Amino acid sequence: MSDFNIKFNHNSGIPLYRQLYEYLLKEIHNGNLKENEKLPSRRMLCNRLNVNKNTVEAAYQKLTAEGYIMSEPRSGFYVKTKLDNFDKDEDTLPDYTYNFSINGIDVMKIPNNIWGKLYKDTILENPNLFNHGENFGERILQKAIQKYLYDTRGINCYSNQIIIGAGMDYLILMTSLVMNKNTIYGIENPCMKRIYSTLNICDKKIRLINVTKDGFSTELLKNSNINVLFVMPSHQYPVGYKISLEQRHELINWANSGKNRYIIEFHYDSDFIYDKSISPIYSLDTNEKVIYIGDFVKTIGPSIKTSFVILPNPLLKKWKQRLNTYYSPVNLFEQWVLAEFIQKGFFTRHIKQMKDIYMKKKDYLISELKNCSFYNKMEIYNANGGTHFIAKFNTDIPEKQMERAARLQKVKIVPLSRNFITSSPLSDEKYFVFGFGGFENFEIREAVSLLEKAWGTL
Amino acid sequence: MSDFNIKFNHNSGIPLYRQLYEYLLKEIHNGNLKENEKLPSRRMLCNRLNVNKNTVEAAYQKLTAEGYIMSEPRSGFYVKTKLDNFDKDEDTLPDYTYNFSINGIDVMKIPNNIWGKLYKDTILENPNLFNHGENFGERILQKAIQKYLYDTRGINCYSNQIIIGAGMDYLILMTSLVMNKNTIYGIENPCMKRIYSTLNICDKKIRLINVTKDGFSTELLKNSNINVLFVMPSHQYPVGYKISLEQRHELINWANSGKNRYIIEFHYDSDFIYDKSISPIYSLDTNEKVIYIGDFVKTIGPSIKTSFVILPNPLLKKWKQRLNTYYSPVNLFEQWVLAEFIQKGFFTRHIKQMKDIYMKKKDYLISELKNCSFYNKMEIYNANGGTHFIAKFNTDIPEKQMERAARLQKVKIVPLSRNFITSSPLSDEKYFVFGFGGFENFEIREAVSLLEKAWGTL
Repeated sequence: MSDFNIKFNHNSGIPLYRQLYEYLLKEIHNGNLKENEKLPSRRMLCNRLNVNKNTVEAAYQKLTAEGYIMSEPRSGFYVKTKLDNFDKDEDTLPDYTYNFSINGIDVMKIPNNIWGKLYKDTILENPNLFNHGENFGERILQKAIQKYLYDTRGINCYSNQIIIGAGMDYLILMTSLVMNKNTIYGIENPCMKRIYSTLNICDKKIRLINVTKDGFSTELLKNSNINVLFVMPSHQYPVGYKISLEQRHELINWANSGKNRYIIEFHYDSDFIYDKSISPIYSLDTNEKVIYIGDFVKTIGPSIKTSFVILPNPLLKKWKQRLNTYYSPVNLFEQWVLAEFIQKGFFTRHIKQMKDIYMKKKDYLISELKNCSFYNKMEIYNANGGTHFIAKFNTDIPEKQMERAARLQKVKIVPLSRNFITSSPLSDEKYFVFGFGGFENFEIREAVSLLEKAWGTL
Repeated sequence: MSDFNIKFNHNSGIPLYRQLYEYLLKEIHNGNLKENEKLPSRRMLCNRLNVNKNTVEAAYQKLTAEGYIMSEPRSGFYVKTKLDNFDKDEDTLPDYTYNFSINGIDVMKIPNNIWGKLYKDTILENPNLFNHGENFGERILQKAIQKYLYDTRGINCYSNQIIIGAGMDYLILMTSLVMNKNTIYGIENPCMKRIYSTLNICDKKIRLINVTKDGFSTELLKNSNINVLFVMPSHQYPVGYKISLEQRHELINWANSGKNRYIIEFHYDSDFIYDKSISPIYSLDTNEKVIYIGDFVKTIGPSIKTSFVILPNPLLKKWKQRLNTYYSPVNLFEQWVLAEFIQKGFFTRHIKQMKDIYMKKKDYLISELKNCSFYNKMEIYNANGGTHFIAKFNTDIPEKQMERAARLQKVKIVPLSRNFITSSPLSDEKYFVFGFGGFENFEIREAVSLLEKAWGTL
């Protein structure tokens, strides 16, 4: 048991929550806090140490996110054991043949002959493209992305507001560096973990917004002190809900009714939504409060690292001042080939084809699941686009046991809780993520029949 | 005049140097500190505010690096005027035809037909390469880089120690995130500015090591509190000196004689050194104290963003823990094509050819300069490899006037001082950077004849 005898150093420049986090981490490593040991409640600890409740909250949150402690609903925080650490113990789980990964993409339909030819022609005709490019990205690509976003989503911006990056993480990081230092970031829980990790690793202040299968109420933002909100309004990763037009307006109002507020809107899955599309939050904004960010991982393939961010002009100006050594870390050939792929209509054609393919895979998966004996124990939600949906299971069998049973049948299927940063209302129920993007139909059939073997006794 | 009435907030979590920096910045913006006004000396201010001298030092350094104040040798710190801010006033300088840029590369000799064919074949034969790759980079590329470094520099490492990145900045940033939070980074002054910017923008603690045209004494490291030292031992950017074998041993001893010390060694220009090569510091290290980092910007072209870092095993382990969402942000096709370009010997052949070409350009440039009337006013240093050297000018004409005179002849040539983070002993003399990598010979001849027109009266 730790005596929690931490001496805070107010002159070190190290935030108090971080000093507490490091102290607790040390106590865990040296065994003063043992596996399975219950930690003091956040209220108790903040009273004992005479610090702000947010300080303890932030320290516990960081330890949870990094896998050292876990929150048992209605019970408290406990130091994790090795067995609890499923992610890290991946090698104790059997190998798998089928993977219902939320990140599964069908890359076999990409017209790679067209890509190959585009690359060869571009390289042969433009040897100068081995040289320095433009700092924010090649104009030809900025223009192509601008047109694509305008044509498909009605997004109106100047091409020079578009900054090209490699991968989302670096762009998110750079964007955070043009914000004020004390910016508090609001992130949905659960969310795309890398967003949390990227900010957390640089000690940015984060407030989690617990979501349900239907999303979150805008009310949660008030009194939260959040300055910058991350949202994926089309098809949230991983829960899958779509933010209504009404709530998009509420979020705009929220952004306009406080200082230094911004919304970072992700393009994610916007091309693959079945219903008539809703206006992006970016297009409802008249006050330059929305940052729009996206990539081509889903629409083309994960190997295409090119990402983009549309910055409001005041932030663009700050970027030029503060990040004046930034240059787009994407090979110029890739930028030109992507621009041409878009300009010549190959991209639109490909998206249309894939949207149809993914919708059919989704229908096929659901029809196969209907044949399963456990189908009456599950409720499917948010099968409204993209390459995944979630399903709630009404059973007493623990989630981990279900996951292990599937693995023993060589099927990898992951509980929604794997994406939690910290426990949430969704923790009270059992959800699994059904990603189908990476499957051929025969694989869907076989994977589902193996799930029947694993879960037939639910 | 500001009354320097800053109230430090010891509970905010914001480092004191940063609070001082922001206070002074505010005073500059609101006019309380006027253009050209002299700031208190660092000693006076730290006494007045009752803070550590390092706090004032760091605040002044940040303001200098960002262009708000400048240091007049033997005089003090002054708030900058708009006219002093040359970089930002690039548009007041005339356009140019010839650019002696240190970053100039000859890309016309790259065998682009080979590149084009490699891309086309790779994409056609491996459509799966549109899918997810390996987190730290494709094994085929890790192995190719490992072999290249072993064959050319005797660097001995496991391929799994090599992490592939896009661009240097992100890799440097990520590397800093696996260091302890309070790590103090040692950077040469002058240096590659982006290294300073990347760390500075994330509020990392930096100590500058003032260098001369011959480098720096290892003695400067003692009592400096530096933990992690950045060096470019082959051909320093921008001064051009090479670190002797003796000093490389000294640096290894320094790294081994203190806690949490590392050397980050840049590969930069190692392929283009004329003399018999000296052992990399990495190879002299037996204690896993050296991190080796490089890219292909000089050896192939600036558009090739692939970069690599070789991490000692303890840091590799930390990377896997802390940066567990990291994935290499480089298109898989680019990784495979680069790997094949290296494996099939095209890369070695190209480097050999370019080394010879650059050496001849250097010789030609010097022979043309010998024809100039100002040649007896200049001393050339560090013309020992790569694509640039520096030259000291013995003249009373101010640097800026020389620069402007050259510009009026449509020649862009940049003083070495442009790379200073803060003033250094080199500030007392006038150096210019002669980058020749981007010139054809006839351009060298014409550019030099225009320099004669500009500087004939020195």
